[in-house]
Amino acid sequence: MNTLLSSKYQYLHSINSPSDLKKVPINELHIVCNEIREFLIDTITQTGGHLGSGLGSVELIVALHYVYNTPTDKLVFDTGHQSYPHKVITGRRDLMHTIRKKGGISGFLKRSESEFDCFGAGHASTSISAALGIATARDLQKKDFKVLAIIGDGAMTGGLAFEGMNNCGVQKRDITVVLNDNNVSIDPNVSALSSYFNELFASNRMQRLRQNVWELTGKMEGIGDRLRKALSRIEGGVKSIITPGSLFEAMGFNYFGPLNGHNVQQLVKMFRLIKDSPGPVLVHIITKKGKGYSLAEKDIRHFHAIGKIDKDTGCSTNISSQKDLAPEYYKVFGKAMVELCRMNPKLVGITAAMAEGTGLDELEREMPERFFDVGIAEGHAVTFAAGLASEGIIPVCAIYSSFLQRAFDNIAHDCSLQSLHVIFAIDRAGIVGSDGSTHHGLLDLAFLRCISKIIIAAPKDEQELRDLLYSAVFYYTQCPVAIRFPRGCSLGVKTEYMKQISLGTWEILKEGSDLAILAVGNMVNESIEAAAILENNNISATVVNARFIKPLDEKMLQLLCSKHKKIMTVEEGTVAGGFGSAIGEYIAANHRGKIELFLHGVPEKIIEHGSQSELLKEINLDSEGIAKTAIAFLEEKSSLSLITTS
Amino acid sequence: MNTLLSSKYQYLHSINSPSDLKKVPINELHIVCNEIREFLIDTITQTGGHLGSGLGSVELIVALHYVYNTPTDKLVFDTGHQSYPHKVITGRRDLMHTIRKKGGISGFLKRSESEFDCFGAGHASTSISAALGIATARDLQKKDFKVLAIIGDGAMTGGLAFEGMNNCGVQKRDITVVLNDNNVSIDPNVSALSSYFNELFASNRMQRLRQNVWELTGKMEGIGDRLRKALSRIEGGVKSIITPGSLFEAMGFNYFGPLNGHNVQQLVKMFRLIKDSPGPVLVHIITKKGKGYSLAEKDIRHFHAIGKIDKDTGCSTNISSQKDLAPEYYKVFGKAMVELCRMNPKLVGITAAMAEGTGLDELEREMPERFFDVGIAEGHAVTFAAGLASEGIIPVCAIYSSFLQRAFDNIAHDCSLQSLHVIFAIDRAGIVGSDGSTHHGLLDLAFLRCISKIIIAAPKDEQELRDLLYSAVFYYTQCPVAIRFPRGCSLGVKTEYMKQISLGTWEILKEGSDLAILAVGNMVNESIEAAAILENNNISATVVNARFIKPLDEKMLQLLCSKHKKIMTVEEGTVAGGFGSAIGEYIAANHRGKIELFLHGVPEKIIEHGSQSELLKEINLDSEGIAKTAIAFLEEKSSLSLITTS
Repeated sequence: MNTLLSSKYQYLHSINSPSDLKKVPINELHIVCNEIREFLIDTITQTGGHLGSGLGSVELIVALHYVYNTPTDKLVFDTGHQSYPHKVITGRRDLMHTIRKKGGISGFLKRSESEFDCFGAGHASTSISAALGIATARDLQKKDFKVLAIIGDGAMTGGLAFEGMNNCGVQKRDITVVLNDNNVSIDPNVSALSSYFNELFASNRMQRLRQNVWELTGKMEGIGDRLRKALSRIEGGVKSIITPGSLFEAMGFNYFGPLNGHNVQQLVKMFRLIKDSPGPVLVHIITKKGKGYSLAEKDIRHFHAIGKIDKDTGCSTNISSQKDLAPEYYKVFGKAMVELCRMNPKLVGITAAMAEGTGLDELEREMPERFFDVGIAEGHAVTFAAGLASEGIIPVCAIYSSFLQRAFDNIAHDCSLQSLHVIFAIDRAGIVGSDGSTHHGLLDLAFLRCISKIIIAAPKDEQELRDLLYSAVFYYTQCPVAIRFPRGCSLGVKTEYMKQISLGTWEILKEGSDLAILAVGNMVNESIEAAAILENNNISATVVNARFIKPLDEKMLQLLCSKHKKIMTVEEGTVAGGFGSAIGEYIAANHRGKIELFLHGVPEKIIEHGSQSELLKEINLDSEGIAKTAIAFLEEKSSLSLITTS
Repeated sequence: MNTLLSSKYQYLHSINSPSDLKKVPINELHIVCNEIREFLIDTITQTGGHLGSGLGSVELIVALHYVYNTPTDKLVFDTGHQSYPHKVITGRRDLMHTIRKKGGISGFLKRSESEFDCFGAGHASTSISAALGIATARDLQKKDFKVLAIIGDGAMTGGLAFEGMNNCGVQKRDITVVLNDNNVSIDPNVSALSSYFNELFASNRMQRLRQNVWELTGKMEGIGDRLRKALSRIEGGVKSIITPGSLFEAMGFNYFGPLNGHNVQQLVKMFRLIKDSPGPVLVHIITKKGKGYSLAEKDIRHFHAIGKIDKDTGCSTNISSQKDLAPEYYKVFGKAMVELCRMNPKLVGITAAMAEGTGLDELEREMPERFFDVGIAEGHAVTFAAGLASEGIIPVCAIYSSFLQRAFDNIAHDCSLQSLHVIFAIDRAGIVGSDGSTHHGLLDLAFLRCISKIIIAAPKDEQELRDLLYSAVFYYTQCPVAIRFPRGCSLGVKTEYMKQISLGTWEILKEGSDLAILAVGNMVNESIEAAAILENNNISATVVNARFIKPLDEKMLQLLCSKHKKIMTVEEGTVAGGFGSAIGEYIAANHRGKIELFLHGVPEKIIEHGSQSELLKEINLDSEGIAKTAIAFLEEKSSLSLITTS
């Protein structure tokens, strides 16, 4: 690959670390940027991954590594979508084609992957708090290095970012926050903060101010002092209009900007100045997501994260398998929401910056007044929903499983304790694949199950998702309702009108005698297939669609316990505290000592990235793995997948 | 009581609802305020409860009920500490002496208690999100009423409040946020926001501005238009200094203030004006916590929440029982932290606005540079700790169990996934008593247990708390460590030097033959006492101090399972997903069908307020209840405390 690179690129092939980058003359840095951009487009359109953010932050990241002494100086990236250029510069160029693949490098930052990744994050808005912690540790240990948090304007709407900013302002540590403002997170940004920036940039006076800053920074070779004086003069002169700075200054930050984030020379000069400026500093730069790849610039949502695509057309080049023809669950959900909103005028949909990802964009188009995108603010999404429900509206919060972790208390304290009818559509529950450990939705069953007043359900297929959603809207109205479903394609069953499912009822899909398999959600179909494999091994299994995790179908459990000695639970979630654990609690209360229970789920370890099917196979949650596990259970062997505590 | 009241008060005895309040002439409202204040001091010094906040908000709450049409108009109080005057006015005056007592009214707002309590909250920072939800529901249903969120400056530092403000600014709904700024939450406030306010008020220019507003609002009878013009003139004139308003205006709010929050007539006039002002409005009022009760004004921390005290001296009038002589757990923790910080220079303590409540105030006094109060911002506290740990500092986050729910994802995503050595000192785990349902710490074992890399421990007494903390600092260094302990007094055992406890080891405290009781934390001593009761009933019980919830002591479990057919777990937490559930998982994996397990814990229902001992007795988690439950288990009866699913 390096030979290929060396023929194609002037600099990129020889940049194996930031120290190599530092050898490039400042006036040729833009060439490096162009090469990184070209390399990323070539690579990511081949492998898939997060494209837009990285393309927007090339100059910023090059400038940071050029000016700062990484890894001694710490770059804390928020979320890490934007960090692909950082990976390229810090010795992982030749691994970029493995990104997000099993055994390959992660799509996010990862402490275990590189000393340049000082703090990992797959969830947004953590960088400022983490950077403040790092800076505080530095000061306590009397060390000397710089700490920077690099955060997008989308992540800035998360309450955690505000808490971090606020505490930075108090602690007055030497820390630099770089606000990478592309006016868009995943979905076009809807925060007050960003509309505030927009208005400012639209105004003439602001334009003039920016012009001044531009010109100054353009000519500032060796004139740092003059610049700073000039900046403060400008600042004084324009205090009569509100600058973006006043907001941050109110929080104790020195503000620099806004700066053009695609002029790498200006960025380098600015960071050289800022590097010597003590105390909390906020640098505000303006970038364009997808910069340099016209398809991505035009369609930000689509090019946020891509599969393998044709570079020129932007079309997917994956060969569709039969299964891929079935609609994805999020689309089934999005469509059902529109149908249900037509039926019930009290129904609304809420998302936290994931309109397209959750399928709610269809509702957004059809009934914009019934659709709410609150930005990256999961906690607010849920408490806002609780407020709506307290006045008779029926809100459906569509949030990915791993992001819903951020609203745990809002569910428990604001919704459940008040018995409010809020519905949670929990997408991407279970193994999510290439996003890896930070994005797997493995905890939801456990963290929801301990909440006292809540209904938890999981559909076996797309029609049952429709039915459960319909039932949640019209029939399960006395408390919060959570419906979890996986990432990826549904089963391809024929969908029809939505019908009521009685609360807390399971269904027996196959009757057998040797053991009963109680499966949840995605695992129902795998268990049916496993039962067929077992049949070939002369084992007769009952298979139950345990579509309610709470409440359990105690009537059916009673029946199953009377007919089976052995029960095995199968779930795509953590064994600790999950569905199987609930069955354990039921048996302890009702059939203690009489039933042999085996809990099959995601084992007690961190699951990395890879394709969904690779990962499920690895942890024995495909049909074959389930069958093998059942056989081991019946033969009373210690199966590979037995629970082990850490 | 009413006869007593009528002789003492001019107005208070006849105010049974806001409509009664509205009959009082505006120029006599201050008399009502004084009477409410006197009544609250008399009552709460007798009953105990939250005193300071309520005294500070008397005029505000009187003005709101005087101007607005409650309960049609909605007052959403943040947290509800400040709401005691609201309870007095809305028909609960004669129940105030029952506040926080079993069967009495709640110390917080509660939808089920009164139609005037439109949204309940025991946790801070929820009001703006909830109010926005209520306002949105109003608009969707084309109803016509006003919605106000009343929030203290302390709660304003919570990220959720920021998320709510930000989204309000976008949605542009008719909503009024009243910022009740007493420059202190529970501990003197440390946010950048509040130091920003302080600096403003200290400045001369700000003083002049305030003076102008004061004078204007004083003379504004019928001159609303002139006032508004004048206000905007002032605003234009002072834009060259940053006003508190610019911060909120940046977020899309119209700003009014700052106003003296203890001049009820001015407040009434101002709210009458604001009532007709559309769009999101922020009213900034300045109040004094503890206003009118000199002891409380002087010592804000102490008078935030009190027990029964002598009104004149402020001293406790509770007769100390023998048990009360033992130090409270939080004090044991606070003292141990100082000792450990002396031993290990890398150790620091973090609290989220609860320095005194968690006992960390001792560290604050001894080594202020090693103590961090981040304000009401639990999420930030934990991610900040993760940042510290990533650079080799050992942070101890002291957060109450129910508040730690707000940092679930920060623990899972920022600490555990990165194997960072952050220690959680989880105070007030279990039943907390008079604070009631929002404050019970019942979920921590379940929500922590599903996280893959974490150690969870609970000490049986104060010496073991010291030992576990010491071991967590020096020996359990490969992942996060959570140590949970209860509210209230320790057992009074003699404490000594701190010593290492081997990770994941339990101890057998009593050997028996009929059953093994595995008890966690607080429940160990109760179980020892229960075993004595059982002994009297000719039942011989093994009692185990299961001080590690994760990892389990599998070696001892193996032994116990070989010697006992019946195992009972006892924990002060939810059965669903808790410690007993972990034992169920272990048995399913290792001894399926051979052991009869019974899980005893907090039943599946919302536990209201009352004294700790009353509540524990009610749910059979006192020694007698445990003994009764064990007998029922042995006799294979369905005990009262069997798990029931909702």
